[in-house]
Amino acid sequence: MNEIGRILISCQDRPGIVAAVSKFLYEQGANIVHSDQHTSDPTGGTFFMRVEFQLSDITDKEEKLKSLFTPLGDHFGMAWNLSLASRKKRIAIFVSKAEHALRELLWRKHSGDLSADIAMIVSNHPDLENLAAREEIPFHLISVDKNDKQKAEERQIALMSGKVDLVVLARYMQIVTPYFIKHYPNKVINIHHSFLPAFVGANPYLQAYERGVKLIGATAHYATEDLDAGPIIDQGVERVDHRQGLDALKRIGQYIERMVLARAVIWHVEDRILVYGNKTIVFN
Amino acid sequence: MNEIGRILISCQDRPGIVAAVSKFLYEQGANIVHSDQHTSDPTGGTFFMRVEFQLSDITDKEEKLKSLFTPLGDHFGMAWNLSLASRKKRIAIFVSKAEHALRELLWRKHSGDLSADIAMIVSNHPDLENLAAREEIPFHLISVDKNDKQKAEERQIALMSGKVDLVVLARYMQIVTPYFIKHYPNKVINIHHSFLPAFVGANPYLQAYERGVKLIGATAHYATEDLDAGPIIDQGVERVDHRQGLDALKRIGQYIERMVLARAVIWHVEDRILVYGNKTIVFN
Amino acid sequence: MNEIGRILISCQDRPGIVAAVSKFLYEQGANIVHSDQHTSDPTGGTFFMRVEFQLSDITDKEEKLKSLFTPLGDHFGMAWNLSLASRKKRIAIFVSKAEHALRELLWRKHSGDLSADIAMIVSNHPDLENLAAREEIPFHLISVDKNDKQKAEERQIALMSGKVDLVVLARYMQIVTPYFIKHYPNKVINIHHSFLPAFVGANPYLQAYERGVKLIGATAHYATEDLDAGPIIDQGVERVDHRQGLDALKRIGQYIERMVLARAVIWHVEDRILVYGNKTIVFN
Amino acid sequence: MNEIGRILISCQDRPGIVAAVSKFLYEQGANIVHSDQHTSDPTGGTFFMRVEFQLSDITDKEEKLKSLFTPLGDHFGMAWNLSLASRKKRIAIFVSKAEHALRELLWRKHSGDLSADIAMIVSNHPDLENLAAREEIPFHLISVDKNDKQKAEERQIALMSGKVDLVVLARYMQIVTPYFIKHYPNKVINIHHSFLPAFVGANPYLQAYERGVKLIGATAHYATEDLDAGPIIDQGVERVDHRQGLDALKRIGQYIERMVLARAVIWHVEDRILVYGNKTIVFN
Repeated sequence: MNEIGRILISCQDRPGIVAAVSKFLYEQGANIVHSDQHTSDPTGGTFFMRVEFQLSDITDKEEKLKSLFTPLGDHFGMAWNLSLASRKKRIAIFVSKAEHALRELLWRKHSGDLSADIAMIVSNHPDLENLAAREEIPFHLISVDKNDKQKAEERQIALMSGKVDLVVLARYMQIVTPYFIKHYPNKVINIHHSFLPAFVGANPYLQAYERGVKLIGATAHYATEDLDAGPIIDQGVERVDHRQGLDALKRIGQYIERMVLARAVIWHVEDRILVYGNKTIVFN
Repeated sequence: MNEIGRILISCQDRPGIVAAVSKFLYEQGANIVHSDQHTSDPTGGTFFMRVEFQLSDITDKEEKLKSLFTPLGDHFGMAWNLSLASRKKRIAIFVSKAEHALRELLWRKHSGDLSADIAMIVSNHPDLENLAAREEIPFHLISVDKNDKQKAEERQIALMSGKVDLVVLARYMQIVTPYFIKHYPNKVINIHHSFLPAFVGANPYLQAYERGVKLIGATAHYATEDLDAGPIIDQGVERVDHRQGLDALKRIGQYIERMVLARAVIWHVEDRILVYGNKTIVFN
Repeated sequence: MNEIGRILISCQDRPGIVAAVSKFLYEQGANIVHSDQHTSDPTGGTFFMRVEFQLSDITDKEEKLKSLFTPLGDHFGMAWNLSLASRKKRIAIFVSKAEHALRELLWRKHSGDLSADIAMIVSNHPDLENLAAREEIPFHLISVDKNDKQKAEERQIALMSGKVDLVVLARYMQIVTPYFIKHYPNKVINIHHSFLPAFVGANPYLQAYERGVKLIGATAHYATEDLDAGPIIDQGVERVDHRQGLDALKRIGQYIERMVLARAVIWHVEDRILVYGNKTIVFN
Repeated sequence: MNEIGRILISCQDRPGIVAAVSKFLYEQGANIVHSDQHTSDPTGGTFFMRVEFQLSDITDKEEKLKSLFTPLGDHFGMAWNLSLASRKKRIAIFVSKAEHALRELLWRKHSGDLSADIAMIVSNHPDLENLAAREEIPFHLISVDKNDKQKAEERQIALMSGKVDLVVLARYMQIVTPYFIKHYPNKVINIHHSFLPAFVGANPYLQAYERGVKLIGATAHYATEDLDAGPIIDQGVERVDHRQGLDALKRIGQYIERMVLARAVIWHVEDRILVYGNKTIVFN
């Protein structure tokens, strides 16, 4: 892992991109381990690429690699990002009272599935402070005044400044404002329940129960200004039937949220996700 | 199958219902093969029951059974229905141009999964006439004037009068009016695509594609006056990703529609579905 | 929950069983909340029933209920069991070094999904002692001499005597002998990986990897003398592909094991499982 | 589609392969539409690649492309194959009495999912001759003497000579011999039921039923000399429970077989499958 690098690329599609990128890596002495590409449309579409490569002493070579790659990126008009697997992303997990999403992330960290640092846990309620303490993760209680959300958000942003690469809203239950999002564009992951059909308004589980849905699900997505309408990263569902009461639906919903959120966070920290318009390309 | 009967019951829950029904069947010489029950709430809820039983010479005894059961049903204030497995339900399948849903139903009929009679195929387009002819099923072309839907519906209802127990909208692509539904309450099954989240308005597959959904699905439900908001019978989903273009999404959607609609129709003809408020109890 | 009782019944099928049981409960003042039945064969098969009922002051009435039900059970030749939801089953969890299965069970206990007491954790390795301590659950280290397994099993059985209703082998990694099983017939739940096709012999994940399986799974079952051939309680699978290396397969396998084992244990403690020959009837 | 080409490559991994292939295509004026790669091991493993590209007038250029690519392939020691999407593969479907697998393939052909020609249907029973006739596909009845299989196989191979690119055993129910396989290496796709655990010997559905399995499935694979042990292409499963009798299990099994076989055949004709040892890399 100490020698693994990843490049994420998007640009206007045209012939020669793959050839140029792979030639570049070859000339640097790198060996391509995985390479995925996608074109939104073979004629005049957008081109996406993720390359994972192995290169000895990559940490020493990082700056040089980036400066050498820059003219190539400029030539094709690429948006690109080069990262090192050994440089773990730092996550702030935002929670409220429910612990299931947080617990799953901590578990994945322990098991080795989630190769990232949990820099801090931020909450508007003290309920999960003990859990944070047991894991020796800094816990910040910042209550939110619903008439002045930005005040709390300013504190949060100050707290995270320079220490956080990704914000995970792990059942935070607060709408974050465009002010907040602007500081972490495509770097705030949210999880919410999903039903077929969708139920708008308060108490969606009750509505789903009363409609007798046969599937319940969860969606992980990047938060955007229009909070729940951002690019979808992953989704999951489970079958239910009339025997599941309202409580059972909620409990099953929590298990889906755990799984879907964990996958989305892991894919993000492994640089597997490219955002394009309002959708994601996930090279998993 | 010639000796199989089924009773569907719903009523206010109270002690003694199961005892009374099972004692009744025992006294008639019937043997219970399957019995399913459900209570919407243990205290003061609604009680639902489906009993499948075996009884020699049930065809001869049908009328007597019904008249003997009537006082029991009255005593508990039951809505109940007794049916014989050997008396196959008669289905009218409404189609438009797409053949996948119709084909699957015909297939299930051939394979023995769907124990029903296909009484007729009704369409507003001639495209599937040959398929109907090959299967020797009457095909009725009734074009629909969008400014006077009721005219077409009157012809449809006249055509089906006395010959049809269930209407299946197998991608009929026309909204049926409350006038039509009133003639077949909880006897019109519709299938439509379903997405997480739901997309309102025209061209939902395009919207789903542009949002980059990771799951696409289909919902089978009873059509009610508010067409797509009726009681859900079954739902299905499949995972998709960025590699599936718009055409692929539509094709995968068709396969889910086939499976989900077929299950819903089979459950209906086997008397497995009870409608309660805006939801279904499916004893499958 | 303090007023909920459950009866599990199996006997030779014949008319009148449901009538007799439901009449009995009605006469005792009980209200049936759920009732499930199954007949292995409508003609001369075995009959299975689970009834969940509500009865005021059931704790005081338990002994009387049992003695009143006895003649009815004798009349039909029933194997039957009456239990109270408020009397939680006591579980001994057997572990080795892997923590995932244990952690999931503890989590389900916390979340309220698993309504049981964890009486003790038994292990042949000290690795999970701290986890047990943090949860304040007695931890017993009993090393196993592979040349004299019975010695360890005698200690285990003595330790559990009168304190344990269910043994869960949560990746215990030791084969328990018929001597052990005899003390807990249909009361030892095991979890193991499952592949399509099955791989016999050492290192099944490596074999599965080398065969390029596209699905990996897990099976929870009651341990019998022929350890892995006992009645199956539940199974789960996940799709995999060539991108998952051997480590990833093992990790995905662990998540399936967690989910499947948790479901099986919950169903057992809620008296939802009847064993019949080498199979289970699960009324979930 | 008339301008789409595909290259499948496998060789010893080493730096520079992607660069060389993409440079080659760029120099020929081709635009890469999809490109997938995989390395069995970053250090000294085997490298696999599938490139789909667009090239004007590719049909005219095919031979030239191949001869120009040959030195590049030789340089890296590649096994490679270049094919044109417009040149449809010709399939022989082998059947016996069951029609479900054949019907699904015909359906996929009609719907446009399966872009291939069905060159012939071969059977040892006359049952499906009418179905073939209705589709206007040549039907060859070749009975198999179980004491001299090779005699039938010689006729089959003579019949297919020069006319068939892929053999699909669509519930053919006959074991084909190594003699047959040798003529179509990695070009014979078989479908068979799969259970967790696997059941060896006669009547596997009965064994699965008696063990009370909770999942049944199907596996599509390339037939090899050891028939059912060849490289797995795809697998599927469905949940079942005690309510499904033996007949229902078989019927559900058929639906899984339909879906899994159709996917496997589609992937093959779209050149998405690379065989490596006893496993497949599927770039789907």
